[in-house]
Amino acid sequence: MMMHQLIRELREEENKSKIVLLVADGLGGLPMEAGGKTELESARTPNLDTCVREGVCGLSIPVLPGITPGSGPGHLALFGYDPLEYRIGRGVLEALGINFQVGEKDVAVRGNFCTVDDAGLITDRRAGRPTIERCIDMCSKLQQIRIPGVEIFVEPVREHRFVVVFRGDGLGDGVNDTDPQKTGHEPLKAKGSDENSEKTARIVNQFVAEARRVLRNDAPTNMVTLRGFSRNPKIETMQQVYGLRSAALAVYPMYKGLARLVGMDVADAGTSLDEQISTLRKIWNDYDFFFLHYKYTDTTGEDGNFHAKVESIERLDGELPKIMALNPEVLIVTGDHSTPSRLRSHSWHPVPTLLWSRTCRPDPVTEFGESYCLRGGLGQFQAMYLLPLALANAGRLGKFGA
Amino acid sequence: MMMHQLIRELREEENKSKIVLLVADGLGGLPMEAGGKTELESARTPNLDTCVREGVCGLSIPVLPGITPGSGPGHLALFGYDPLEYRIGRGVLEALGINFQVGEKDVAVRGNFCTVDDAGLITDRRAGRPTIERCIDMCSKLQQIRIPGVEIFVEPVREHRFVVVFRGDGLGDGVNDTDPQKTGHEPLKAKGSDENSEKTARIVNQFVAEARRVLRNDAPTNMVTLRGFSRNPKIETMQQVYGLRSAALAVYPMYKGLARLVGMDVADAGTSLDEQISTLRKIWNDYDFFFLHYKYTDTTGEDGNFHAKVESIERLDGELPKIMALNPEVLIVTGDHSTPSRLRSHSWHPVPTLLWSRTCRPDPVTEFGESYCLRGGLGQFQAMYLLPLALANAGRLGKFGA
Repeated sequence: MMMHQLIRELREEENKSKIVLLVADGLGGLPMEAGGKTELESARTPNLDTCVREGVCGLSIPVLPGITPGSGPGHLALFGYDPLEYRIGRGVLEALGINFQVGEKDVAVRGNFCTVDDAGLITDRRAGRPTIERCIDMCSKLQQIRIPGVEIFVEPVREHRFVVVFRGDGLGDGVNDTDPQKTGHEPLKAKGSDENSEKTARIVNQFVAEARRVLRNDAPTNMVTLRGFSRNPKIETMQQVYGLRSAALAVYPMYKGLARLVGMDVADAGTSLDEQISTLRKIWNDYDFFFLHYKYTDTTGEDGNFHAKVESIERLDGELPKIMALNPEVLIVTGDHSTPSRLRSHSWHPVPTLLWSRTCRPDPVTEFGESYCLRGGLGQFQAMYLLPLALANAGRLGKFGA
Repeated sequence: MMMHQLIRELREEENKSKIVLLVADGLGGLPMEAGGKTELESARTPNLDTCVREGVCGLSIPVLPGITPGSGPGHLALFGYDPLEYRIGRGVLEALGINFQVGEKDVAVRGNFCTVDDAGLITDRRAGRPTIERCIDMCSKLQQIRIPGVEIFVEPVREHRFVVVFRGDGLGDGVNDTDPQKTGHEPLKAKGSDENSEKTARIVNQFVAEARRVLRNDAPTNMVTLRGFSRNPKIETMQQVYGLRSAALAVYPMYKGLARLVGMDVADAGTSLDEQISTLRKIWNDYDFFFLHYKYTDTTGEDGNFHAKVESIERLDGELPKIMALNPEVLIVTGDHSTPSRLRSHSWHPVPTLLWSRTCRPDPVTEFGESYCLRGGLGQFQAMYLLPLALANAGRLGKFGA
């Protein structure tokens, strides 16, 4: 990647500056009705607004205009990686989220317990969302399955979700999802798109047949579907590319996994923003770059709960002074994508973004919000350029060319 | 380069239009304090503002967001070349600046006279900034050095600066700088990164040892360091790519060199903006494209002298009517990068840019300045697209596709 090569040439090794990337997941939104305000525009955010007045704003495009990203590409872009070049399968992401290190011979896949009727047709794609205890029990049954030529790992995640990793020589990941994505159908057969992936598909079909057998008396968790067969992408670490000692402070597994994928250390950050910031304070001297992930702007948006999303933004705003009290050189507040409550899903809309530092060129924006950011000095930009901008503002990049 | 191929397909050969590119070096700036104005926003610029009202404005990104360019990449972008694709070493740039044509068998390098103590440790990296007369004298001593198998040219620049060109078969330019960049150290040994560059390095080390010997009684100019070993990059000319007969009107050597690199004729433009514009008038009928370089917006910025930078902008504004009187089809006023007085150095901040023509779509901007340009019709754009825009506004580009 040209940008990475350039950064390697220009980055300064001796620099003590601190960069905080605060990702409010799904931050961007939409008004509920014509003439209304978005969630962010509706929220009372005095602390963010102070940073906005001193800093520079804009709208980030996570991948390309019109493209709605999942959490993987959305975060990779914010970490300074082109999400079109670096692709991460769902299986690998899920495995990383439970601290399962996917190795070179591994194909990882996300598993879901589901319920099938006597005819084998799916009646509940999430098996009634079992407890974690049941998820663990059921996974231990699946762990008994043996297939010659491969090692199989089955690890619980939570509710109906688990991870399977197939380890063996010559396994490809060009295999379709077995989840038909709707009830009333049988799980799909796995098929491989090439020779190595056909080998994987044969093993997968054996595994699923065995799973059906060992779970036959365990309704509603009496069957499995598999999604997102994927191998570990080889990604250079943020230390290697950007020269940053990086730490992730996330509550949810997937974001820890994403951070691990680019070589971040994952701190034990508890289960709340308050605990995340306490941890941030503790490890402040040990790292250069801190990724703080805040999930609730996304979950409330996915729930279609406009007011809850507004409140989650206001809670975040309330914690901001604790971060600023640590005196970072650069603070970025943005999202990995938009999640408008009105759409109840991720969307393609550009994401309001704030970059605060002592060397940014101020712009006329005085409040944080989608329509205000339109007038911001960062303009509309591809999210993957945010990290180079952060390095520049932190004094971490030398001059390009004589 | 895709853009160049496109331009070759679309450009119209019969066109008498005139394009003026006025580069105010380091034009972009920053306010000195929160809520303040930048240098350009502070300057009284009635003539520029008239063009702004009639034209279209925006902010140009010289290389990529966050990347601070040197003069080389900054100008190449303005000349319509991707600065990431076309890289120019310091040695070649310096050689071109003194009208030394670097040939195919040449490796050029920038030399600095420095002062070393009896132990050979550098005490002054610039040898007390000698006069040009002394620089010439010392270079003539270095010109006596002979090394079998290569031809060596040593040419004075000014103060402590000179150029060395090694001419011979199979010389590589993958050689490190011998300047340790700090005092108290010996100059570094040259090492080559490949076989051809090792050959260069051996010759360089012999040259430096000889230089030490011939200068031993000439303190403070009693040693040399070498930076930026480079070969001549093969760059298609602006005539070849853009179909433009181009002339450069610059005072400082480096900018003349950059212009030569893309095939511009370098006019004898004197030593002041007034003389540059007199020359412009004289050669007006002989060319299609005129690159006027104005240095003082950069030097005042590098000096950290906000008020002097404001004055230098106002002086430039005062000369603008003389250019407009020549009735160009297109006038561009921009910088190759920002040089905020507050930072006393080049920076990554986007550069205020004005494009005036009779076919541009006017925007709401009425004054020239960073924050005003944010609302401009050019938006934020990569600087290398400015030249195609100029061609379009000059009626020099046909339609792409049927």
